[in-house]
Amino acid sequence: MLTISNTPSSTAKILTGSNMNPRVRKAEYAVRGELAIRSEAIKVELANGGSFPFQRVVGCNIGNPQALDQKPITFFRQVASLVEYPDLLKDENREIALKLYASDAIDRAKLLLANIGSIGAYSHSQGIPLIRENVARFISDRDGFPADPSKIFLTQGASAGVQLTLQMIVEHPNVGIMIPIPQYPLYTATLAVLDAKPVPYYLDESKAWGLTTDELQRSYDEAAKNKIETRALVIINPGNPTGQCLSEENMREIVEFCKKNRVILLADEVYQTNIYQPEQRPFHSFKKVLKSMGAEYEGFEMISYHSISKGMIGECGRRGGYFECEGLDQSIMNEIYKISSISLCPNVQGQIMVDLMVNPPKKGDPSYDLYKQEYDAIYFSLIKRAKKLEEMFNSLEGCTCNSADGAMYLFPQVRLPKKAIAAAEVAGKAPDQFYCLALLEATGVCMVAGSGFGQVEGTAHFRSTFLPQPELFDGFCAGITKFHAGFMDKYRD
Amino acid sequence: MLTISNTPSSTAKILTGSNMNPRVRKAEYAVRGELAIRSEAIKVELANGGSFPFQRVVGCNIGNPQALDQKPITFFRQVASLVEYPDLLKDENREIALKLYASDAIDRAKLLLANIGSIGAYSHSQGIPLIRENVARFISDRDGFPADPSKIFLTQGASAGVQLTLQMIVEHPNVGIMIPIPQYPLYTATLAVLDAKPVPYYLDESKAWGLTTDELQRSYDEAAKNKIETRALVIINPGNPTGQCLSEENMREIVEFCKKNRVILLADEVYQTNIYQPEQRPFHSFKKVLKSMGAEYEGFEMISYHSISKGMIGECGRRGGYFECEGLDQSIMNEIYKISSISLCPNVQGQIMVDLMVNPPKKGDPSYDLYKQEYDAIYFSLIKRAKKLEEMFNSLEGCTCNSADGAMYLFPQVRLPKKAIAAAEVAGKAPDQFYCLALLEATGVCMVAGSGFGQVEGTAHFRSTFLPQPELFDGFCAGITKFHAGFMDKYRD
Repeated sequence: MLTISNTPSSTAKILTGSNMNPRVRKAEYAVRGELAIRSEAIKVELANGGSFPFQRVVGCNIGNPQALDQKPITFFRQVASLVEYPDLLKDENREIALKLYASDAIDRAKLLLANIGSIGAYSHSQGIPLIRENVARFISDRDGFPADPSKIFLTQGASAGVQLTLQMIVEHPNVGIMIPIPQYPLYTATLAVLDAKPVPYYLDESKAWGLTTDELQRSYDEAAKNKIETRALVIINPGNPTGQCLSEENMREIVEFCKKNRVILLADEVYQTNIYQPEQRPFHSFKKVLKSMGAEYEGFEMISYHSISKGMIGECGRRGGYFECEGLDQSIMNEIYKISSISLCPNVQGQIMVDLMVNPPKKGDPSYDLYKQEYDAIYFSLIKRAKKLEEMFNSLEGCTCNSADGAMYLFPQVRLPKKAIAAAEVAGKAPDQFYCLALLEATGVCMVAGSGFGQVEGTAHFRSTFLPQPELFDGFCAGITKFHAGFMDKYRD
Repeated sequence: MLTISNTPSSTAKILTGSNMNPRVRKAEYAVRGELAIRSEAIKVELANGGSFPFQRVVGCNIGNPQALDQKPITFFRQVASLVEYPDLLKDENREIALKLYASDAIDRAKLLLANIGSIGAYSHSQGIPLIRENVARFISDRDGFPADPSKIFLTQGASAGVQLTLQMIVEHPNVGIMIPIPQYPLYTATLAVLDAKPVPYYLDESKAWGLTTDELQRSYDEAAKNKIETRALVIINPGNPTGQCLSEENMREIVEFCKKNRVILLADEVYQTNIYQPEQRPFHSFKKVLKSMGAEYEGFEMISYHSISKGMIGECGRRGGYFECEGLDQSIMNEIYKISSISLCPNVQGQIMVDLMVNPPKKGDPSYDLYKQEYDAIYFSLIKRAKKLEEMFNSLEGCTCNSADGAMYLFPQVRLPKKAIAAAEVAGKAPDQFYCLALLEATGVCMVAGSGFGQVEGTAHFRSTFLPQPELFDGFCAGITKFHAGFMDKYRD
């Protein structure tokens, strides 16, 4: 006879999937989800002699350039190396050090350490004052409007900044945050954890992922009807996963929309230097656009985010970035400082890379020529690879792909045969997930299914970076092309 | 006539102190609170020629050894420097590199990079597999029981690990987490943000900050009476701010208490090498104690935390650490991985320092002698400074101080005159805060008032590190002694 007890057995776990934090359980993050986990497992199997129809996993699921062998910028790494080991900066070692390091790298490292003390010490919780001053100068040079170091917070990457600032805003579960669809899933994941409501607005794929204020207003109004108090609007510019870059006029409309509806603008501008059509689609910062709109917009509340992980730097593993607050109430600034201080400080090597990003070698500096050469090589190659991948996607049966004005991704739509959709259903997968899993097993290429970013119901997309190195790029494209043809043949209706 | 409108004025801020996240607003973190902020302001004034009765601010508010000029371990920094700049590892540079770097530092950097690729790439979200293997080996060597790399998560410092794991546990606002009083305020701050209930248990100052299971049970039972569902118990061992080190017998009782009451044990063991009475009060890990308790404790749920910021390493600014999960349900492990992946990965330089911490030079290695010499110099000096500061505190009028078995702090009690308490009230400060502010203005020494850690009602304490460098230590003690005498004279009843 079975005895059923109402008290938990003493060997049952105290914490389980069913009594843990339900907000955490709800969060989803496809960029490192099932596909990424499977690709990690394949890597291990490959290393242990496992047999696959490919030699190497190519992680195009995440904008991680150095994992795909992009070389770091020499000057940046020289400074990072020197600050780790201050003995190298001593006069008695100068002669030998100069055989390995550029003189301006040595000078910069000295200047930083004179200001910081040791990179092994906790810094100011808001970030090293000197570096925040340099960030402010960078912003004012970029925009032509002043920036204030006391309104800049250094962070462990833009993601940490987004999480920290969203946390400030969410007062109760009916606070809404407008997010683009498709979006980078950091946003939905963070809102799930914070127990806030995502308020989706749709980018128009048929108009090059265009953003209209009509759609913003529709989204806002619909949320209001559902008693959601919309407090902020996230704009990712250039877009992730969609790669579009906003026009100045469009940005002004967005600022007007925010003012009219009393919504804080959160501007994710981490791809600001990944601009591939600089003539037709240059990058404008929201700070510059806002400041050019005149006194009427004084006090407008905005936060903008930047990162060392993207651009031509790609120092993802280091975890560095900053955000700039504009027009926030002083009490909120104090609270941001307090919450930053609980985590003590952003890692100092990340902060130093922010310094290098905003203050790279200048014309005439000993390291300038090499810096310029390395930077341009990455930049022009990214333009080429973006174009090549777009053309490849557009050549595939049933596939259409907008071009990337910026960022590191393409987000093609694929129209899958009904038989493939049925097979996906049998496998218990979304159709685009099913496609991406098959691609991974056949080619070693790891992409992320569109369902992880959000997409119009009934459509299927995937996101791929164009980061594989130039010498491997043709092979990479050929592999996908071959797989796609086979997949379509197999499931053709 | 005044017109009063119910709709917010268009210039009023959207986000203010009164409609922000109330859980964030509630959080307090005294270690970087009013005293630390004032000390930062004094630093700036001093740098700009401001006049104070001292030349330098001495930050004893936080365990930040390198900010007080503790030299980093040379071998560690050599490896950190080399991994930043892989060109130094090329054969053609070996001859020059060997003039600046030890050969085993070069070998270690090569091994790490061969495994990692680039430190500029996002790593595995759980931490670099090789480094987790080394952590597991370190734990099993330390404890004599096996450890599993798949149950180890690398983090950006122990604080990040504590925040992440507490987040898993808090299902609803009546979840309680037992914390010591006095405690390190990371815990109360994190519980405030998570909207959980701190369940305080008191350490007994009259018994060298002893911890009894009677007091644990009283605390648990009282919470239960208030309908609080206590899910976890935080133990800080060695204690912060109190410096006590638990006996093995006491630890076994604590494990029994947890099992009996179905409470997860969270063991903050970041000070495990800061042990100053190694004969009478050696460090035992909870993992070892648990594993030695036999099969009955199979499946016991525990998380233990470690850090590169403490010990003789003191690499706080780098933000690195790990936690090891014991007996957690697999679904919880998966959720911990997911939530880690949303933040992408811990910074790689922090991970590398974890590797160096758990795998330092060994006897016979070229760097061993220097490593040992540097490590021991810091260690024996800390023992001396802890003793000296304790004696100084015990020599002050109205002041008593337990000795530190471990950690980096002393937490003396000071019995303030009634007149001082009245003056504090007039100033709108807690008495111990009032005392610490006066100390800061008079001497430049920044401590943290006991009210920031919690203390028995009506008592006053403060926490000070004993980290000022040996050559400054006597002056540091003399300054406090002189201030204290003057303070007591001024307010004597």
